[in-house]
Amino acid sequence: MPHINLPEEYPGIRSLFMYSPVTALPLNNLVQTLMHDKETSTLTPGERELIATYTSSLNECKYCSNTHGAIAKYQLGGNENAVKEMLARNANSSEVSNKMKALLHIAQKVQQDGKKVLKTDIENAKKEGATDKEIHDTVLIAAAFCMFNRYVDGLATWAPDDPAIYDAIGKQRAEEGYMTKPFSVKSINS
Amino acid sequence: MPHINLPEEYPGIRSLFMYSPVTALPLNNLVQTLMHDKETSTLTPGERELIATYTSSLNECKYCSNTHGAIAKYQLGGNENAVKEMLARNANSSEVSNKMKALLHIAQKVQQDGKKVLKTDIENAKKEGATDKEIHDTVLIAAAFCMFNRYVDGLATWAPDDPAIYDAIGKQRAEEGYMTKPFSVKSINS
Repeated sequence: MPHINLPEEYPGIRSLFMYSPVTALPLNNLVQTLMHDKETSTLTPGERELIATYTSSLNECKYCSNTHGAIAKYQLGGNENAVKEMLARNANSSEVSNKMKALLHIAQKVQQDGKKVLKTDIENAKKEGATDKEIHDTVLIAAAFCMFNRYVDGLATWAPDDPAIYDAIGKQRAEEGYMTKPFSVKSINS
Repeated sequence: MPHINLPEEYPGIRSLFMYSPVTALPLNNLVQTLMHDKETSTLTPGERELIATYTSSLNECKYCSNTHGAIAKYQLGGNENAVKEMLARNANSSEVSNKMKALLHIAQKVQQDGKKVLKTDIENAKKEGATDKEIHDTVLIAAAFCMFNRYVDGLATWAPDDPAIYDAIGKQRAEEGYMTKPFSVKSINS
């Protein structure tokens, strides 16, 4: 049961967005820009969602890792293998490029403590073809999910067990982005 | 030296906001709403800045702890004692109310892992007079600074040593909020 009185039909962060619309707006704007919009990053939306899935999995955030894993699957055209590797916290997965491996390694450091990111981590990512902007985006995505994971878990929001719920959220967000109407469980139960 | 090529005259997160304006906008909107606007929380801006200072200090983020400590000082009408206690990571400080002690205790759990917040932590905060909304705001502030601290440190941004720089930033942000022009060191060196 959530620590505060949240609307019951919305899972995870969506219940918090309904509870506090004034902070939901900038938070949704942030994920839309950081994760979904094609013109804001040279990382694909699928690659960005994999970084979010990996970070959320390191933080053991059930709601966020399953949700962003499902979004990543749809953004990657149905490829579930890379998602499974992120949920298994395998930054060296053969399912992703060498550039992505190097960026995931940076995300892993950020998840622990930003100060753990070393010059050699950056040099390694650049050697694999990552740009300054891609390194920036990776650090901000990992940092942002350290916020979202704590927001979701710190208030003990409801994380569904049914994989169909995450799949439906993943499909909706991959297709529509983050600014459309909040996902309600009523929409798949009706 | 920063890990990526950032504008030199801006310290900390301000250099990142100049580098990536598209993500700066929602991030600044978030702190404006979460930290500064009077009508969005029954916690005072000074109390909210103390939570940010405490969290940033737990994360050992030099730039954020000093900046938000300075903002807190101005928001609290010049009271430096409470700020010093937050920088010393003393959640049981006699400089803050019992309600704030209970909320800082929750912030400390969130800084580690949202799942560490227990029902008893929430009950204790409520016993001291905290509302659901104040608990929500505390969790989101602590979570947000786990993001900002990692963003600032993960890219190795420049954190000034000169206390006068933090003081000038603190005064500007307390008076003007977070949406005005970025602080440049040129403004205090000229």
